[in-house]
Amino acid sequence: MKKEEIIVLLNKMTLEEKIGQLLQLATPFFEGAKSEGEITGPLAQMGVDRKDVQYAGSVLGASGTEEVQAIQKAYLEKSRLNIPLLVMADVVHGYETIFPVPLAIGCSWDIPLAQKSAEVAAKEASASGIHVTFAPMVDLVRDPRWGRVMESTGEDPYLNSEFAKAFVKGFQGEDYPNNHDHVAACVKHFAAYGAPEGGRDYNTVDMSERQLREYYLPAYKAALNEGCEMVMTAFNTVDGIPATGNRKLMRSLLREEWNFEGVLISDWGAVKEMIPHGVAADDKEAALKAIEAGVDIEMMTSCYVNHLKELIENDDVSEEILDQSVLRILTLKNKLGLFEDPYRSATKERETETVFSERHRELAREQAAKSCVLLKNENILPLKKTEKLAVIGPFANSKDILGPWSWKGKVENAVSLIEGMKNYFSTENLNVAEGCGIEAGTDEEMNEAVAVAKESDIVVLALGESSDMSGEAGSLADIRLPDVQRQLVKRIKEVNKKIVVVLFNGRPLDLDGMIDEVDAILEAWYPGTEGGAAIAELLVGKRRPSGRLTMSFPYSVGQIPVYYNSFNTGRPKGAPNAQERYVSQYLDIPNEPLYPFGYGLSYTSFQYHEAILSSQSLTSEGSITLSVKVENTGDVTGEEVVQMYIRDVAGEVVRPLKELKGFEKIALEPGEARTVEFSIEEKDLRYHHSDLIHRSDEGEFIAYVGPNSRDVKGYSFSLKNR
Amino acid sequence: MKKEEIIVLLNKMTLEEKIGQLLQLATPFFEGAKSEGEITGPLAQMGVDRKDVQYAGSVLGASGTEEVQAIQKAYLEKSRLNIPLLVMADVVHGYETIFPVPLAIGCSWDIPLAQKSAEVAAKEASASGIHVTFAPMVDLVRDPRWGRVMESTGEDPYLNSEFAKAFVKGFQGEDYPNNHDHVAACVKHFAAYGAPEGGRDYNTVDMSERQLREYYLPAYKAALNEGCEMVMTAFNTVDGIPATGNRKLMRSLLREEWNFEGVLISDWGAVKEMIPHGVAADDKEAALKAIEAGVDIEMMTSCYVNHLKELIENDDVSEEILDQSVLRILTLKNKLGLFEDPYRSATKERETETVFSERHRELAREQAAKSCVLLKNENILPLKKTEKLAVIGPFANSKDILGPWSWKGKVENAVSLIEGMKNYFSTENLNVAEGCGIEAGTDEEMNEAVAVAKESDIVVLALGESSDMSGEAGSLADIRLPDVQRQLVKRIKEVNKKIVVVLFNGRPLDLDGMIDEVDAILEAWYPGTEGGAAIAELLVGKRRPSGRLTMSFPYSVGQIPVYYNSFNTGRPKGAPNAQERYVSQYLDIPNEPLYPFGYGLSYTSFQYHEAILSSQSLTSEGSITLSVKVENTGDVTGEEVVQMYIRDVAGEVVRPLKELKGFEKIALEPGEARTVEFSIEEKDLRYHHSDLIHRSDEGEFIAYVGPNSRDVKGYSFSLKNR
Repeated sequence: MKKEEIIVLLNKMTLEEKIGQLLQLATPFFEGAKSEGEITGPLAQMGVDRKDVQYAGSVLGASGTEEVQAIQKAYLEKSRLNIPLLVMADVVHGYETIFPVPLAIGCSWDIPLAQKSAEVAAKEASASGIHVTFAPMVDLVRDPRWGRVMESTGEDPYLNSEFAKAFVKGFQGEDYPNNHDHVAACVKHFAAYGAPEGGRDYNTVDMSERQLREYYLPAYKAALNEGCEMVMTAFNTVDGIPATGNRKLMRSLLREEWNFEGVLISDWGAVKEMIPHGVAADDKEAALKAIEAGVDIEMMTSCYVNHLKELIENDDVSEEILDQSVLRILTLKNKLGLFEDPYRSATKERETETVFSERHRELAREQAAKSCVLLKNENILPLKKTEKLAVIGPFANSKDILGPWSWKGKVENAVSLIEGMKNYFSTENLNVAEGCGIEAGTDEEMNEAVAVAKESDIVVLALGESSDMSGEAGSLADIRLPDVQRQLVKRIKEVNKKIVVVLFNGRPLDLDGMIDEVDAILEAWYPGTEGGAAIAELLVGKRRPSGRLTMSFPYSVGQIPVYYNSFNTGRPKGAPNAQERYVSQYLDIPNEPLYPFGYGLSYTSFQYHEAILSSQSLTSEGSITLSVKVENTGDVTGEEVVQMYIRDVAGEVVRPLKELKGFEKIALEPGEARTVEFSIEEKDLRYHHSDLIHRSDEGEFIAYVGPNSRDVKGYSFSLKNR
Repeated sequence: MKKEEIIVLLNKMTLEEKIGQLLQLATPFFEGAKSEGEITGPLAQMGVDRKDVQYAGSVLGASGTEEVQAIQKAYLEKSRLNIPLLVMADVVHGYETIFPVPLAIGCSWDIPLAQKSAEVAAKEASASGIHVTFAPMVDLVRDPRWGRVMESTGEDPYLNSEFAKAFVKGFQGEDYPNNHDHVAACVKHFAAYGAPEGGRDYNTVDMSERQLREYYLPAYKAALNEGCEMVMTAFNTVDGIPATGNRKLMRSLLREEWNFEGVLISDWGAVKEMIPHGVAADDKEAALKAIEAGVDIEMMTSCYVNHLKELIENDDVSEEILDQSVLRILTLKNKLGLFEDPYRSATKERETETVFSERHRELAREQAAKSCVLLKNENILPLKKTEKLAVIGPFANSKDILGPWSWKGKVENAVSLIEGMKNYFSTENLNVAEGCGIEAGTDEEMNEAVAVAKESDIVVLALGESSDMSGEAGSLADIRLPDVQRQLVKRIKEVNKKIVVVLFNGRPLDLDGMIDEVDAILEAWYPGTEGGAAIAELLVGKRRPSGRLTMSFPYSVGQIPVYYNSFNTGRPKGAPNAQERYVSQYLDIPNEPLYPFGYGLSYTSFQYHEAILSSQSLTSEGSITLSVKVENTGDVTGEEVVQMYIRDVAGEVVRPLKELKGFEKIALEPGEARTVEFSIEEKDLRYHHSDLIHRSDEGEFIAYVGPNSRDVKGYSFSLKNR
């Protein structure tokens, strides 16, 4: 349909029909749904009726060609103007083939592979009838108490932006929107949802606008620059006003400054949540604030559908503002080809062939292996297949390794650790015991595990958090592993000196009770469908760990927030002439995290040769190159993530000690060396000044290079803007 | 001297003499000091020479008429224009008679008494030759990890403002500056020093300007409205720029918007600290930024003295800006009468008579008693004098109870707990054992304590933190008592069922390992010189506890920040229709603190009768009154702090669940009732809107009344601006 035809269509629509386009309801409201709900009880409480459903512009959470087609068909039969439903869903880290959680994918530092993971998710989802995914989530996070950290790629704006672009490319595809193997992406949660106070989900967010722009906004912007079709509002406040009703954020910044022309959708129920937030007295005021802010689609509350008409008729809202929203929604439907094919090429055959295919599982296995981070290894990994092994712990046998937001993933299809290990160890060399549950256990279980450990050469302890301990609303004040699991480590340690811990979890943990007690720690996160297979490959050395942390592991919860790109302060600890007492420090723990951003071990060792800066002087027109030769000095092949950071020594505002500005993941054979080059230009040195303008300053800079944000060597250069 | 004479004097001064006025050095630089330092070594490293000292405008930390007079005399002998030195010092919670730390004074909720404590401090300090005290510190704090929390009155802007005014009144006196029994006050640390990230002292501060204005600035403003003479800059950044070089904060806000005409001084070394902060490349740039921001006096670094001349000669800084600073300093000297009497009536005789007088100690004892907060009491307090008592713990005998910033306080003069208890218990009924040290102990000590506990009816456990565990740079990541003390509680609990804990410490603690194990907890903070005497009076019921917390006690460190005037969020826990999972909560602990703001027990009970609002409708011109009858329903006299909070149900920005807007501390005999009245006016309902304007909105409000911020009853009213 041409743009003019859409406008003709818009002009044919009644006020009710237009308002209906702005309503998104979940599957059970719709005729044709697998679990169709009567509009009574909870559904009726929402304040919608059959007519509202008939006009609703989009459906949330439908899946499978059978259901989607049934819903669409029934819907279109009653649609006066034949406007198809948009089908949206949370396809976050895979559809049925579940990839590691995004925090883990981030740790792969493998941008092309991350893009492929989104391509697979899009392929399965689109084949199953879905048009839009509520992903990527690109919220920057510095607080591991926040359970939803598992859905983010971490604490760095640059790295998050790289992944944001990769995910959008992967979901939408190069030939978007024509290629029906892809879906439209919806970047979320705009803005700063990852910074709730105290790490408590949905809690207040407060920061300076400069901090917001410098650290929190870049990844959303990167997604939009990549053509991301939609934006979802955050649940939180931004400078005192819930994002969903925040005109400054949505209209002034997103629409006007950034020129975003796509569809803006509220998060689930977020329009009406302006009432408990305390900025709207009732549904009508909530509707007014949301439409004024520029929210096009209201998800799962009925403020628009019940009050927009009255607001327009009373001239509180102009019909033009409504028309703009409807036009954006119709344009998206048209872009996706729904007017021509409301099923968007989704067929049962394509679905069957595509979903959970062997090829997809292979990619999920590769991504899982690349996402694991080896935190510690005291000459114990990789395991020898001839060793007598015990796999102990609540995750030895568990298939609860898909992680939160793995909606269509089937737990029963996941490969558990023990299943993976069976590929490499004979039955007589592979004992298994649960030891305890996630949060509780019996003496019998514990004793059995101790007995098994006694008889083994090496114990692999599979520990972690159940998937509901992180994810949305999964905030914890104590981020150590549950007490019973720390007890298990202690008991096993008493009888067996050789312990490898594999961690299944969704946040950086306080490793108290484990870090000193065990010989190796492999952080496997929630590794997805192929998790156990990938981990086994790593443990035996068939693949080699290459993940690097994208979030700092705090020394303890009392150190939060701790992140690498922090400031020096006026009284840095350890500076020359620093007084022993009067410096910025904790008296009881170090300032540094236990494991820093960028950290991770390999099965081999890498040597960084002296780096070379092509010039110590950079001009605004030119560029300089930092070249560093990295050599594999160990005995096995390995991958290294060579990282380049920059520090602005004196800014107009305080500048971080280090900021990631480049990285390259390289594979080296034993003895092989490669020179990695990073180009540095003036634009890499820009930051938001006190006037919020993004520009650079002349002066001294330091470029650091190394294997992580801590172990770097610096090279000075200066910028002269001439 | 008249204003014109000061200007004549200013015009006589050389550039060097003028710049010298802006330099503040510590005592050892000056001839006549008790511990006069050679200007070599550390002093020379500061980059000052004899000539700089000769021109320096003020001295920091001199005390005692003997020393102050010797320094002033020697200084004036070399002063070409006979401009006397200003003598400044940290007289924070007492001079030699040490009052409880400010956090404790805050918990008294006794504004007139707090004023008296500052009067006593001023009287002793002025008699000892001091002209200016670096107090009050009025930084709002929400993070108990921050060690300097002990110097603040807590988490509430309204209450902090009341104390700020009382302290300024007390230091400066009603007849300021003529009454030489008083000193000039210097409010600090402007601004928001109490909000360092992670509770780590000197660390980055970041918040929205609205939050800064709404919560953090009011107490500084209150102090200035009360006529506070000076302001000290904070060490931290404010929106990315160190306060000491922050033009927007200092010039635009403090000078222009607030019309502050007094002297602005940097904190210790803060001008030069702009270099490590990373906003100045060298001393010269630091000097430039500080003078441009409007800092008059540079404390303990030499950026001004070594670079201002050059900056002025090169026209980077106008001489007028320097003249303004010098004029402000000379004006203060003149105001204090120093040109007429450089010793400001301080004589040895007056000093001897005034300092550490019996009357002052009585007031310190009263303040200490009123500052203790009874957190728990399961029918055990007050103690009967006939009971066989054991006083156990590292604070049983300790005199380290003055707390940080008690400079001239003499530890040996402090009354320890056991000394206090000896006034009421016979030697045979009063056993004592240390049990352990603050952070470590021996088995013998522990066993001895257990033996003593066994033989006693009741154990008073005197536990806490050594004074260097809080205070400046005293940040902790773990705010539980040290492990050995929690072990002591456990061991004593095994042999004695009746335990009263008295806590000596400088921050809200995580009471893990104690809260469930003991029968009573009295939070004594650092109670000052008369601490042990006051606590003993409370324990035996000679006085009754009446303190109320001014900072929340967190459930655990993982809950930080937790404070009463927080927001509802869009998904509050426990709201009607709230989903079990998808609400703002921690999965492992409650959202609420262990003990809320305003909380504290008495030895009696109080009943709140139904309150009455004089009208449910308030207009912008009028006022309404909330009246509540409070009755002492117990058997002994007691004091109650009746607290009134207000909630704005729907604002233009989100508004706190409760905000303290009034309180009254009343004493009631058994059976006595009193009606407390709170007036509510439109101005009490104002807040900073998104445009930063301070105004109210029409609409619904709730006035709450009760004994603390949690246990309140609400009464609705509406505001109609007509």
